[in-house]
Amino acid sequence: MGMVYDVFKKEIFDDLPGDMSIGHVRYSTAGSSQLKNAQPILVDCARGPLAVAHNGNLVNARLLRSDLEARGSIFQSTSDSEVIVHLVARSKKAGLEAAIAEALRRVKGAYSVLAMDTTSLIAARDTCGFRPLCLGNLKGAFVVASESCAFDIVDAKYIRDIEPGEVLVINRSGIHSFSLGNTRPSGASMCIFELIYFARPDSIIFGRDVDRVRHKLGATLYREAPVKADLVIPVPDSSNAAALGYSHESGFPFEMGLIRNHYIGRTFIEPSQTIRDFGAKIKYNALKTALNGKRVVVVDDSIVRGTTSRKIVKMIRNAGAKEIHMRISSPPITHPCFYGIDTPTRKELIASTHTLEEIRKYLRVDTLHYLSKEGLVNAGGGNAREYCLACFTGKYPISLRVGFDKHYHDRKQGSITLKV
Amino acid sequence: MGMVYDVFKKEIFDDLPGDMSIGHVRYSTAGSSQLKNAQPILVDCARGPLAVAHNGNLVNARLLRSDLEARGSIFQSTSDSEVIVHLVARSKKAGLEAAIAEALRRVKGAYSVLAMDTTSLIAARDTCGFRPLCLGNLKGAFVVASESCAFDIVDAKYIRDIEPGEVLVINRSGIHSFSLGNTRPSGASMCIFELIYFARPDSIIFGRDVDRVRHKLGATLYREAPVKADLVIPVPDSSNAAALGYSHESGFPFEMGLIRNHYIGRTFIEPSQTIRDFGAKIKYNALKTALNGKRVVVVDDSIVRGTTSRKIVKMIRNAGAKEIHMRISSPPITHPCFYGIDTPTRKELIASTHTLEEIRKYLRVDTLHYLSKEGLVNAGGGNAREYCLACFTGKYPISLRVGFDKHYHDRKQGSITLKV
Amino acid sequence: MGMVYDVFKKEIFDDLPGDMSIGHVRYSTAGSSQLKNAQPILVDCARGPLAVAHNGNLVNARLLRSDLEARGSIFQSTSDSEVIVHLVARSKKAGLEAAIAEALRRVKGAYSVLAMDTTSLIAARDTCGFRPLCLGNLKGAFVVASESCAFDIVDAKYIRDIEPGEVLVINRSGIHSFSLGNTRPSGASMCIFELIYFARPDSIIFGRDVDRVRHKLGATLYREAPVKADLVIPVPDSSNAAALGYSHESGFPFEMGLIRNHYIGRTFIEPSQTIRDFGAKIKYNALKTALNGKRVVVVDDSIVRGTTSRKIVKMIRNAGAKEIHMRISSPPITHPCFYGIDTPTRKELIASTHTLEEIRKYLRVDTLHYLSKEGLVNAGGGNAREYCLACFTGKYPISLRVGFDKHYHDRKQGSITLKV
Amino acid sequence: MGMVYDVFKKEIFDDLPGDMSIGHVRYSTAGSSQLKNAQPILVDCARGPLAVAHNGNLVNARLLRSDLEARGSIFQSTSDSEVIVHLVARSKKAGLEAAIAEALRRVKGAYSVLAMDTTSLIAARDTCGFRPLCLGNLKGAFVVASESCAFDIVDAKYIRDIEPGEVLVINRSGIHSFSLGNTRPSGASMCIFELIYFARPDSIIFGRDVDRVRHKLGATLYREAPVKADLVIPVPDSSNAAALGYSHESGFPFEMGLIRNHYIGRTFIEPSQTIRDFGAKIKYNALKTALNGKRVVVVDDSIVRGTTSRKIVKMIRNAGAKEIHMRISSPPITHPCFYGIDTPTRKELIASTHTLEEIRKYLRVDTLHYLSKEGLVNAGGGNAREYCLACFTGKYPISLRVGFDKHYHDRKQGSITLKV
Repeated sequence: MGMVYDVFKKEIFDDLPGDMSIGHVRYSTAGSSQLKNAQPILVDCARGPLAVAHNGNLVNARLLRSDLEARGSIFQSTSDSEVIVHLVARSKKAGLEAAIAEALRRVKGAYSVLAMDTTSLIAARDTCGFRPLCLGNLKGAFVVASESCAFDIVDAKYIRDIEPGEVLVINRSGIHSFSLGNTRPSGASMCIFELIYFARPDSIIFGRDVDRVRHKLGATLYREAPVKADLVIPVPDSSNAAALGYSHESGFPFEMGLIRNHYIGRTFIEPSQTIRDFGAKIKYNALKTALNGKRVVVVDDSIVRGTTSRKIVKMIRNAGAKEIHMRISSPPITHPCFYGIDTPTRKELIASTHTLEEIRKYLRVDTLHYLSKEGLVNAGGGNAREYCLACFTGKYPISLRVGFDKHYHDRKQGSITLKV
Repeated sequence: MGMVYDVFKKEIFDDLPGDMSIGHVRYSTAGSSQLKNAQPILVDCARGPLAVAHNGNLVNARLLRSDLEARGSIFQSTSDSEVIVHLVARSKKAGLEAAIAEALRRVKGAYSVLAMDTTSLIAARDTCGFRPLCLGNLKGAFVVASESCAFDIVDAKYIRDIEPGEVLVINRSGIHSFSLGNTRPSGASMCIFELIYFARPDSIIFGRDVDRVRHKLGATLYREAPVKADLVIPVPDSSNAAALGYSHESGFPFEMGLIRNHYIGRTFIEPSQTIRDFGAKIKYNALKTALNGKRVVVVDDSIVRGTTSRKIVKMIRNAGAKEIHMRISSPPITHPCFYGIDTPTRKELIASTHTLEEIRKYLRVDTLHYLSKEGLVNAGGGNAREYCLACFTGKYPISLRVGFDKHYHDRKQGSITLKV
Repeated sequence: MGMVYDVFKKEIFDDLPGDMSIGHVRYSTAGSSQLKNAQPILVDCARGPLAVAHNGNLVNARLLRSDLEARGSIFQSTSDSEVIVHLVARSKKAGLEAAIAEALRRVKGAYSVLAMDTTSLIAARDTCGFRPLCLGNLKGAFVVASESCAFDIVDAKYIRDIEPGEVLVINRSGIHSFSLGNTRPSGASMCIFELIYFARPDSIIFGRDVDRVRHKLGATLYREAPVKADLVIPVPDSSNAAALGYSHESGFPFEMGLIRNHYIGRTFIEPSQTIRDFGAKIKYNALKTALNGKRVVVVDDSIVRGTTSRKIVKMIRNAGAKEIHMRISSPPITHPCFYGIDTPTRKELIASTHTLEEIRKYLRVDTLHYLSKEGLVNAGGGNAREYCLACFTGKYPISLRVGFDKHYHDRKQGSITLKV
Repeated sequence: MGMVYDVFKKEIFDDLPGDMSIGHVRYSTAGSSQLKNAQPILVDCARGPLAVAHNGNLVNARLLRSDLEARGSIFQSTSDSEVIVHLVARSKKAGLEAAIAEALRRVKGAYSVLAMDTTSLIAARDTCGFRPLCLGNLKGAFVVASESCAFDIVDAKYIRDIEPGEVLVINRSGIHSFSLGNTRPSGASMCIFELIYFARPDSIIFGRDVDRVRHKLGATLYREAPVKADLVIPVPDSSNAAALGYSHESGFPFEMGLIRNHYIGRTFIEPSQTIRDFGAKIKYNALKTALNGKRVVVVDDSIVRGTTSRKIVKMIRNAGAKEIHMRISSPPITHPCFYGIDTPTRKELIASTHTLEEIRKYLRVDTLHYLSKEGLVNAGGGNAREYCLACFTGKYPISLRVGFDKHYHDRKQGSITLKV
């Protein structure tokens, strides 16, 4: 466990034999952060050694696990991803690609999956295409990654996205792919939050340039709710691009009015797949001289519980800001995610239980504006049907009746009926 | 991993809830010494949490594992014992005792097994009764252990041995037992090496007082091959009792002529279930003044490869002994064990490839005598049919044709056909 | 060893008794990064327990150490700071403040020092005032820190700087201070590199607002060497403020055209007191869409060896930039620092051995401009006499003849004669 | 910290350069068992690197430390041995041997010392000769050890003891020695407890064969207090030799009636320099069949608090012994040791506060006999003047008035005036 560069030192790489490998840096959303839940899951089964890495969240994992256990399977972890491994181990299909396809047709939910045996490496994406996965080329070798920025580090070239429902097979004969088949008629349901917050700005995600999309989110924010101000500041670093877009559109000067503490230790490094809600953990500091007496637009990417935003606003106010205008580069989050993003329950989401004006008062800002859904989708460069907007709308792409088992949420959700 | 008192500190015991527990200090004979092979094996399965500890060696584990893997089971360790867990997890029988019995009827070989779920604790012994297992009483509670000396430490009382083929069930209703049924017509096949070397001298094993049996082995050694000598010394500490028996029978004074170094560090602590063959690892030292100019009888419990015995003899000779008479309190070991004792392959066993006289010359002793099989069985207080004497005779109680898979030996064994 | 929040967990703080404490997060510049060189140095001596933390570098430490060792002192570390502890332990003065003063009058070089015994806490700064040290108030208690941003985290108020040559004593009677006495006639020699690069932008250092100073550095850079461009980008994050100053002065749009990887693991966290020269270690990535076809001004704070700047330029060029104009918010570094900043030897400093045009060609930029010394001092808001500019001028405030012993440098320096 | 074979693995030895080395496995008697108190103490001082290992206890260490600290020395440990290092570091004498001699002439108490710099290795013994130290030859190289049994392990030859007050110097020119000079007129004061208990039986100590001495102790025990019995048992393993001596003299059969548990974990390994008083920690078990109905002589080497002996007696009684005759191969311990053996305070010593009959009743034995002082000295083969018998007599060879500082004892001792 730990950071990649701390764990995989040069000696370890030098000792790795073979010409094929997979890795994973998931902060698991189902299954707590223990070593036994680390991925890739590596097992010996009748097929020989098998490794599987999974990004996303399976909504019928609990049902499938119960069924597998009733038939005698013994699970080694609490991770939803292990279901895939057991389904592959039990498959009667010859060849890894057929077994993987059979397993993936049984699981429901969000997954970008890598699997490997001694002869082939398989990359697959669920039919909704919730999570990104892309293919690249490194000096003639194929590489697969969640985000294209990973290619830049090793000087690999981005080729294309793995398609929703595509199973891509890489082996010594080359590369080929086939479809899982049951693609949703309505097309994909890509997680738009990847564009708003998760993905790195230097990535191409779902075919979009993340940095440019965020600039547009910021520009749209200004057009949707103009205000007079002296400067624009981001909540660094995830809102930098949106704040720059706002600054360029509005003409108000951009400032790094909040300084982020990078020396915060392992304890406070935020999980990459969690909607930020760091409470008082991660420390910011406000630049007093820069903000004193100013009318300030603060651009942030989202509000979850609202507690952190409130602390940031207070910090800016204490630095002497005369007016504070909060601009959020996404619509209000009103519903939890069941497809791989760690969100609190519905009643903890401030936008689910409070009106815009109530939130504004709670945050103690002069004005507050959330980006509209239309503005969001337009900036994303597509149409609403391509994206999963469930956290803003409650319209879930996969019926939760069949096999919904995000157990730590469903009990709390009570009688809420969630449906497409 | 480590010594019991170092690992299970008071704080750990204080934190243990419940009123039932099992533990294990096995040096695994099949499956290397890794944490993942530590026992009890603890899994979650459809029956809930299940713990299994196993002493012995299963001869059809590899066949069963292949079969289970072909049906989709995923093993977590390289231990033969895990087969039992998977058989229980797949059993359709209601209740742990029925499931355990079903599993144990499928495995072949040597096992003393403890299993536990949340409601009952089960103790079982294979139908040959290779390994010991006994029942005790601690202030009204039942305790089960491989050797009765464990009871003494906690002031528990020895009640009786678990019988070969018996499945004993302890739960809130009390205690009851039933038979696995297919007991061998010829009776038990208890490992006589437990009496010669493995068991602690302060234990009751197979209903025999180990210390008294070893005294008789030593006395018999003198009667079988009398010699004139000035003193008798053991190879401490496993041969102490036999050497004392020899001394009392012969009238020659007993001396601790070899000093054993107890401060030898974790690295050199010898596995308890391995026939000693410590090479130059564990250090002895010879008492020069005591041995100088003397005719010395050296009593040891067994000779495996002969290399250590040769070193010990040299040490005694260098201390000035005038004559050295080696007496071994067991017959020549000519065949490997497949029932839980870690022995080298046949060609590494000196007695399998050399005559008595060749061994005597190799060891450089004046005379050499191994205990006769009759002397051994008589000292053991039973008849030859009760015991497994396979390591001295090559007559294996369980046919190795059906399911023999001691894989690290069978390949080396080549064309040897081993049979009852 | 490690990050503060990882090492000092809540349990540790909860167990700390007393009402006074000192800590230290120095990356030692003299003495390698080992646990035994960690500070505060804590010893038991005739005065009782004594703790000392030291920021800076002593130029006569080696001479003093030899002298102390010749008189029988035994050092426990390789740190120059331990000399102070031994001088205090040997002092005949009554009271910690007198002993500390006596010790500090003997050491030469740069130091901001904290010392503590069971009754008082002492803060002192060398007579040149190389390194910052400031006093704050936290709910009636006194706090001392190198940078005022530390006060913000705990909601303490900045009161004032400790003066060059001041010894400040805090104990139960309150606070008082006195002067070490031998203040240089020419006044202080504050390290101007603290303003350019080391200090956090949210700090007040030497009475200056660091963020505002850096904005001025950037604005001055534009005025000194105007150029036509489409956008301005910083090398994040240390050049953010200067790049913003440049953008505001020039009117060219600001962009975060380089993305910094914050998830780089412990191995690659850069020492805070080292002039950045991370080689290929810390990864940046360039935003292709943002930079493609653009005339780009890149603002960086300094160039040491030039190797990293060259890599960054290449990255920007590969992203499609049409023109690259490099602007450095400090003058060329031509001489090593002996007062606490870890710089390479003179011949490794690119500006010491190459002309401006040679450096421009090496970096492969279209134009290159370093800030002038006048521009630097003006932005710093003072006059040249207040600052140490030795790394730009070679004029060292403390004669290196008396006691110069930065041993890993002096041998390499050869015949260079360095003098005030 | 840990066992030698666990800490000094082959890789470590392979990496050691040079042709001279010293090591130490002391359980420190002054200074608690912490890594910083581990020896050899290794420091850098004006003489260069210096290593010192010390066996014994200095009675004026606290006085000397206070004096050194008052003069500015800073100690790194709580060990009394560090005083020697500081005295050497402060010595003005040229050459290590002169400096060591000067230092040793200032310390009082028990010491066998090894010291090493880059050119010579020095072995020295205090003028009383409390602790053993011997010289050996290993293929032409010189080796020094506390006990000769260490030589046997590496096939070195015992040459002679280092004499009381001798300083032996080994360097490239060969070997030479000189005397510290102030030898006590009355001769040596060798610790007779080394012969009774501490030394390994396979060692030559003070020129005596330890095993033979202990046989004589046992034989003398029988002659001093004959009794009728069926068998003789030792408290293993430290009393084995004395019990054998008793058995040979009396003609009563010897039995290993108590089994010692060797698998007791790191926690319970007894310090080699502590008089055994393991309470209930180290587990023995009694052989029921062997002892049942018998008249048993139990031979032990000493009684400290009596609590353990009482537990052992109870165990033997529970095993069915008809009579128990306790024989102790040393006189009653009535006074604490200040020369390197960790003993409890006087009032915790059962023989200091109880009569023989009271002890017999407390232990619940049928008869009890302690060896006489005359019997002890005769078995030791010398005269009373050669030995330190202070723990039996209270006559301390070194006046405790001058510099007595065994601080954890003196406060408890109150007004006791201890004198030669």
